[in-house]
Amino acid sequence: MINIAILGFGTIGSGVAEVVEKNQEEIKKVLGENLHVKYILDIRDLPGVVKDIDTIINDPDIKVICETMGGKEPAYTYTHLALERGISVCTSNKELVDAHGVELSAIAREHNCSYLFEASVGGGIPLLRTIREACGHEKISKIAGILNGTCNYILTNMKAGKEFDAALKEAQENGYAERNPAADIEGHDTARKIAILASLVSGKKISYEQVDCEGITNVTAEDFAEAEAKGMSIKLLGVYDAENNSVLVAPHLVPKESALYNVNGVFNGVMIHGNMVDDLMFYGRGAGKCPTASAVVSDVIECVKNIGRNINNDFADLEPANVNKAPEKPLGQKFRTL
Amino acid sequence: MINIAILGFGTIGSGVAEVVEKNQEEIKKVLGENLHVKYILDIRDLPGVVKDIDTIINDPDIKVICETMGGKEPAYTYTHLALERGISVCTSNKELVDAHGVELSAIAREHNCSYLFEASVGGGIPLLRTIREACGHEKISKIAGILNGTCNYILTNMKAGKEFDAALKEAQENGYAERNPAADIEGHDTARKIAILASLVSGKKISYEQVDCEGITNVTAEDFAEAEAKGMSIKLLGVYDAENNSVLVAPHLVPKESALYNVNGVFNGVMIHGNMVDDLMFYGRGAGKCPTASAVVSDVIECVKNIGRNINNDFADLEPANVNKAPEKPLGQKFRTL
Repeated sequence: MINIAILGFGTIGSGVAEVVEKNQEEIKKVLGENLHVKYILDIRDLPGVVKDIDTIINDPDIKVICETMGGKEPAYTYTHLALERGISVCTSNKELVDAHGVELSAIAREHNCSYLFEASVGGGIPLLRTIREACGHEKISKIAGILNGTCNYILTNMKAGKEFDAALKEAQENGYAERNPAADIEGHDTARKIAILASLVSGKKISYEQVDCEGITNVTAEDFAEAEAKGMSIKLLGVYDAENNSVLVAPHLVPKESALYNVNGVFNGVMIHGNMVDDLMFYGRGAGKCPTASAVVSDVIECVKNIGRNINNDFADLEPANVNKAPEKPLGQKFRTL
Repeated sequence: MINIAILGFGTIGSGVAEVVEKNQEEIKKVLGENLHVKYILDIRDLPGVVKDIDTIINDPDIKVICETMGGKEPAYTYTHLALERGISVCTSNKELVDAHGVELSAIAREHNCSYLFEASVGGGIPLLRTIREACGHEKISKIAGILNGTCNYILTNMKAGKEFDAALKEAQENGYAERNPAADIEGHDTARKIAILASLVSGKKISYEQVDCEGITNVTAEDFAEAEAKGMSIKLLGVYDAENNSVLVAPHLVPKESALYNVNGVFNGVMIHGNMVDDLMFYGRGAGKCPTASAVVSDVIECVKNIGRNINNDFADLEPANVNKAPEKPLGQKFRTL
C-alpha cells in the first residue's frame, strides 16, 4: 500500500480522494498496490484533517503529496519542505508552477523525487506528459489552445446569439464563472497555462508576465455575426509561436476547418504543430472536480512508479526566456486569425 | 550513439530514416545520445540495404529494430528472432499486432526488451501510450474512433455533395485510396485498429475477426442530406462499448455537438470516455509517411530509455476475449447514432 497526503480539501483535493476511492481496482492494476490517502491537510475544521505540515512530512510512510491548495502560500513553503525530504509533489496549482516551477523542479531533482503538474494545464487532458514524452523528438513550431472553460462557455453562448453581459451572467448562474470573473475573462488564466506549455516546448522559462494578454470583454454579438458570415468562430486562444518567439492570449477568428472550431462549452482543446507529426489536437474537460483530479492521480501514479528517481527533469534547467512582442493584428481588423 | 535498424524501406520505413535525420538535435536532447540508422533491410536491390536479418540481429550494436514491412511474413519471423535476442521492436504493422501481438509481447517480456506498436493505430496520434499511462487508472466505458483516413476523406467529400463512386475516384486520384480499396472502405482496417484499442482497454485480447464490421459502400449522398437536416454528419466509427462488451465498425450519425463531428478529410480522431476524466478526444494525421514514422520514433525513444527493461507488459497477459454482438440498429434506421 502506498500512502499519500492531500494538501487542501477543496474541489480538486476532494476529487483526488474520490478518484483514489472509486478507481481503487484500476489503480491497483497499474501499480500493483493500492493508493491510500493517509492525511488530508486543510485550514478548515473538517473532521479528520490535520493542520500541521510537519505531521505529514515527518511520516516516512508518505511517498507522494498532492498539493491542491492553489495560490502561492503556504503551497510554496509546503512543497519546498516536502521535496527536500524526497517526497514527490503533484499539483494543479498553475500559479505556483508559473512562479516557482523551475526552482521546485530543481529541488526535486536534487532529492531524487519529482514535481509534476499535469493538472495545472488543460484539466483532465493528458497534455504535459504527451508533449514531454510522445512529442519530445518533434520540432514544435506552434501551440494554439482553448485553455479556459469559462471563456469558452461564454463565447459558445455568444455564438448562439447572446451579448457578452448576458452570457457572462448565465455562466455565473451555472457556476462556470466566479462572482469576480476577471482572472478568466481578462485572459490571465489562459496566459498562465500557455506560459507553462510554451516553457516546456521552447526550453526556456516563459513567465505569465511575458504573455501579451487580451481578454474577451470587447467581443460583441455583432463580431460573431460577422465571423459566422465568413465561416469562422471566435475563440480565446493562447498561442505560442516558435518562429516569432512570442506568446499571446487574444480572441481569434477560427476557421470552420480547424479542429479547434468545434471545441465548445466548458471544454478545452489544444492544437500542437510538429514538423514531422503535423497537427495534433487534444480535447477534454479543462476544469472540474473529477477530470482535474484524474490528472493529479495520473501524476501520482507516475511518481509511485518512479520512487527514488526524478522525472520531468527538463523543467529544472530552464533559463528565463526573452520573448518578442506578438505580431500586430492585421490593419483594420479587430481580431487575429488562427 | 544508439544504433537501430529499419526493416522494410517503404513509405513508413523511409519516413523513420527521415525523422531520425531531420530531428537529430531534438532526439539527442531527449535521449542524451544520437540515434543512428545502421542497417536498412529491404527485399529490393536498393543501394546500401541488407537482405539478411542475421546480419542485423547478430550485431550487438543494434538495440532497437523498426519493423515497417507490414503483413504477417516475414515480419513475424524477424520480430520473433529479434525479441529473442533482447532487441526491442517498434512497429506500425497492425496486422501483425492483431494476429501475434500478445505472443510477441510475451517474448519481449521474457527477454527484457519491448514490443511497441504506437504507430499501428491512429498514425501520428499519441494514443496507445496515453491510454496505457495517462488513463491507466480510469474505468473506460467507451472508445469511438475515426480510424481510417481514406474513409473519412471519402465521407467528407460526400458531405460536400459528391456520390460515393465519385468521392472514391477522387480519393484514388489524390493517392488517398488504393486501386483496390476494399480493406479501407469495407471497414477491415478500422476493425483491426479498434480491436487493438479495445484489447488494451478491456484487458482481454479482442481479435479483428470478432469485430462486427460494416463499411461505407452503402452510404449515399441522400443519406448525407438527411443527416444534415438533423444537424448530423456520417462518419465511419470503430466503437468499443465496455458495458455491452461489444466491438463494432459501422457508419454512424454523429451530432454537431460531438468532438468527432469536425474531424474531416484524412484526419483521425479518437474519443475516449473515462469515469473520472469524462470525454477525451485525440486528433491528428492517422496515416502518411512522416506522422506515422514519428510515432515509430517515439516508441524507439521509449525503448532506448528503457534498455534492459520490458515496457507495455500488460499486453503479454491478455487472454482471448468473448465479445457480444453489437446492439442492432434502431428499428427502421439505416445508421446507429453516436
